[in-house]
Amino acid sequence: MSTTISIIGSGNVANHLGKAFYQKRLTIKQVYSQSIENATVLAQQINATPIANLDAIKPDADCYIISIKDDAIESVLEHFPFKNKLIAHTAGGLSIEVFKKYGFTNYGVFYPLQTFSKNKKLDLSAVPFCIEANNELNQNLLTQLAQQLSNSIYPIDSEQRKTLHVAAVFACNFPNYLYHIAEKITAQQNMDFNILKPLIQETAEKIITHSPSDTQTGPAIRNDQEIIKNHIQMLADFKDYQDIYQLLTNSIIKEKTNGEL
Amino acid sequence: MSTTISIIGSGNVANHLGKAFYQKRLTIKQVYSQSIENATVLAQQINATPIANLDAIKPDADCYIISIKDDAIESVLEHFPFKNKLIAHTAGGLSIEVFKKYGFTNYGVFYPLQTFSKNKKLDLSAVPFCIEANNELNQNLLTQLAQQLSNSIYPIDSEQRKTLHVAAVFACNFPNYLYHIAEKITAQQNMDFNILKPLIQETAEKIITHSPSDTQTGPAIRNDQEIIKNHIQMLADFKDYQDIYQLLTNSIIKEKTNGEL
Repeated sequence: MSTTISIIGSGNVANHLGKAFYQKRLTIKQVYSQSIENATVLAQQINATPIANLDAIKPDADCYIISIKDDAIESVLEHFPFKNKLIAHTAGGLSIEVFKKYGFTNYGVFYPLQTFSKNKKLDLSAVPFCIEANNELNQNLLTQLAQQLSNSIYPIDSEQRKTLHVAAVFACNFPNYLYHIAEKITAQQNMDFNILKPLIQETAEKIITHSPSDTQTGPAIRNDQEIIKNHIQMLADFKDYQDIYQLLTNSIIKEKTNGEL
Repeated sequence: MSTTISIIGSGNVANHLGKAFYQKRLTIKQVYSQSIENATVLAQQINATPIANLDAIKPDADCYIISIKDDAIESVLEHFPFKNKLIAHTAGGLSIEVFKKYGFTNYGVFYPLQTFSKNKKLDLSAVPFCIEANNELNQNLLTQLAQQLSNSIYPIDSEQRKTLHVAAVFACNFPNYLYHIAEKITAQQNMDFNILKPLIQETAEKIITHSPSDTQTGPAIRNDQEIIKNHIQMLADFKDYQDIYQLLTNSIIKEKTNGEL
């Protein structure tokens, strides 16, 4: 018999997971959100019952997935009515210990290491799921659940997951911000951001087969001071971008000098 | 009759262009490098004659492509024996004006906006070629040459190309450096960098269909001060990475506050 799930949350991750479970023909019992409208929008798409009150949560699911903002999780745990049900959060930065504090006996972490945006479809089958649980049985249950969605499952403890979470900021959030800067710089000269897209794709693709330490290119790694000076000057309208350019350039030159790049 | 080419240079870009021309059955006459060994390695693969002396350049090519380090270009131009032949450089950061100084009469820029690494194959057909020339005839000749390799040709003047070059640092060189940081952070905890690769791919793919300004995720855009503080603490072993984390985070928060992100 397949696992039944209830989902606490209706944000990006809850949406992606809920729809993926539904596509894999798992039964989703309830969707909880503080806003009944948001709960309803998701619930309707995955044949679940929307609720906006934690007291309305029923004990009929095998597993409860909590996918809400980190700072809202404790308050939900405090009011969650069934302390012996298997429950897991999806947060990168939050320890598994949070469940202990509120008297849960079967718990874990179900962390998809990916960036989720509304209105952007995503194939979960290649997304790494980082699984942690309070005992082997629950580890197996959550692993099996993740295997329904993905071919890439990693047992990752809370310390490792915290490290991954920082690394993910460097691997995803900051690069996206740098893309934004590139878009703004080109837009200022009325150029089309599309011209930079093949470069962005190739840069990301390259690291599938090559270590980024071996593929660094550009003025900083060549220590081309003339180009660097020109670039800093050209960024005169963007003071903050000048600082970012200078700091990253200095750091690249330093690592190159130390033989670390 | 198809255009014949000689290539000045034997580095990454010269290699990629030379092989691509050869694959498209264009005739490459000569390959010049200061090192006859390097000239020979490339020349042998593309059925050209290697030379290591600028005086040995023959006037039998229709077009001369100079693809060497920026700071070596002027010295080559100074000694280049045929001032009326069509000649183009492939440098992002160098103005077209450089040719005028040395008395050339037919010249331009043939700039592939891409990151080229040795031992990494690349399909040039999607690479944007930025073309500039000193007159319409040469603009057409260089455009037709680029069309042999790519479906994506842009007429781009020197000012625009300089802007693109800065933007490319933010779109490519800096993200690659951040991937390197992510790899170092995960390695320190004995974790496999592979786990971050789907995230890196998705982040880059997302901007094909969505503006990066609309897809920013992570602790900074949420202004999640607790996570940010934790991350900074966790980077204690990497002082420079702490500074980078802080500066990029501050800049994201500022742009979010100003409504620019």
